[in-house]
Amino acid sequence: MPLMTGEDLLEFQKREFPQTVDMNIVVDEISDEHISLHMETGERHLRPGGTVSGPTMMEFADLTMYFLLLAQIGPVALAVTTNLNINFLRKPEPGVLKAEGKLLKLGRSLAVGDISIYSGNIEGPVAHVTTTYSIPPKR
Amino acid sequence: MPLMTGEDLLEFQKREFPQTVDMNIVVDEISDEHISLHMETGERHLRPGGTVSGPTMMEFADLTMYFLLLAQIGPVALAVTTNLNINFLRKPEPGVLKAEGKLLKLGRSLAVGDISIYSGNIEGPVAHVTTTYSIPPKR
Amino acid sequence: MPLMTGEDLLEFQKREFPQTVDMNIVVDEISDEHISLHMETGERHLRPGGTVSGPTMMEFADLTMYFLLLAQIGPVALAVTTNLNINFLRKPEPGVLKAEGKLLKLGRSLAVGDISIYSGNIEGPVAHVTTTYSIPPKR
Amino acid sequence: MPLMTGEDLLEFQKREFPQTVDMNIVVDEISDEHISLHMETGERHLRPGGTVSGPTMMEFADLTMYFLLLAQIGPVALAVTTNLNINFLRKPEPGVLKAEGKLLKLGRSLAVGDISIYSGNIEGPVAHVTTTYSIPPKR
Repeated sequence: MPLMTGEDLLEFQKREFPQTVDMNIVVDEISDEHISLHMETGERHLRPGGTVSGPTMMEFADLTMYFLLLAQIGPVALAVTTNLNINFLRKPEPGVLKAEGKLLKLGRSLAVGDISIYSGNIEGPVAHVTTTYSIPPKR
Repeated sequence: MPLMTGEDLLEFQKREFPQTVDMNIVVDEISDEHISLHMETGERHLRPGGTVSGPTMMEFADLTMYFLLLAQIGPVALAVTTNLNINFLRKPEPGVLKAEGKLLKLGRSLAVGDISIYSGNIEGPVAHVTTTYSIPPKR
Repeated sequence: MPLMTGEDLLEFQKREFPQTVDMNIVVDEISDEHISLHMETGERHLRPGGTVSGPTMMEFADLTMYFLLLAQIGPVALAVTTNLNINFLRKPEPGVLKAEGKLLKLGRSLAVGDISIYSGNIEGPVAHVTTTYSIPPKR
Repeated sequence: MPLMTGEDLLEFQKREFPQTVDMNIVVDEISDEHISLHMETGERHLRPGGTVSGPTMMEFADLTMYFLLLAQIGPVALAVTTNLNINFLRKPEPGVLKAEGKLLKLGRSLAVGDISIYSGNIEGPVAHVTTTYSIPPKR
């Protein structure tokens, strides 16, 4: 069972990472190895040609993994991303972005996850991320 | 429907990449977006401490993506790997390695896939790979 | 010789990607295989604990590669990132971020670069990126 | 000053990883943040069309990072690769492969390096790798 609910995660985010709150993330589902989130893109997330910026998708994927990890280990602000690999697969559209995160490994010092980002009704992921977090040692 | 069966793939491998045949890959299942393979590790795939070498898993994942792609585009020997990102997650054991490959994107010039490698009865993947192939233009 | 100067690049960015202009990038040096840029972090790039956000570094590295590529192929707005792999190495500090970009390959359809991000007086890179751009075919 | 010489490294490899000795690696130079190695490809490293296999380059890069790390921390057999990202850039030729490795970070629990692989007289790297090793805690 996850240690934090979607509500807990959003409160933690608001308190510890207020700069990221403008992504207006909604937690749709959370379990031990999966998480589903969505967000609505705003003007600042867009690029000419009616698409969503790469950094928006990277930030969204990074937060997805952070939430997935925190739900397992509890509110540890000091977990940090050490590696993030992203493949941009299809052109996303303004509107709703969904993220599906899956925990590949939860070790003592490293956690690895796999995140797919979906956009509106586009079939197949618009981006795919594999990322590693370093977990601080317990005191 | 895939253009090539498991048998076709193994014959193609034997003809075009005879050096990789000693991996003794078996194709268990193949569909438009997935492939399942397995192989038995031999002496040369092992490392001290009773584990399987990283390069063995990289090569197995690379072949998994190659088969997944060829099954869709037909026997195109010239498709080449441009990027491969691997996370080593758990210590694999000598014996059976399984690969589950999923096509994330099949474009005109690039194909991207996601491969999880499993070892014996170990729960969770021992390695996870995301990889890109470049597809040569049709003449 | 690069086809675009630092001034050309910034004008192009302003015209085509106005949303990224608030990074206030300065081009310090540009040659056929290297580029040096710097920027000053603002309030929105920071995170609690006096550090710079990961997405800021990802966006800065992505722009570095885009500039490095455009300087070689001319103002092609449609070149797009297909892969970006980032390792976060040290904790950056608010203030000046520098990027050193190096072109590893400039092919007909793919370009690959290597970017190191430096922060203030911290020794060694704070982040390291390898990234691939897809170049649209000439009409 | 490195804790191990090229000779020490090769002896350690022979003792601990006898299966990799057939790569016949030669250590050309070693300092605190750099290492230069070379090897001669054999029949088993080649692929049809007169090129070198991807797994050969991955294994060579992985060993380069391992040697670079061991030279700093001493003969710790248990350091393991956690992530390896490779971009294949140019078609290598049979013959001499050179590796230039650079330490990007040497932390307490993680080390990150950047390796370029060169082939014969081909200008520019044939492959570029970024890789992370996990360092076991001192007892």
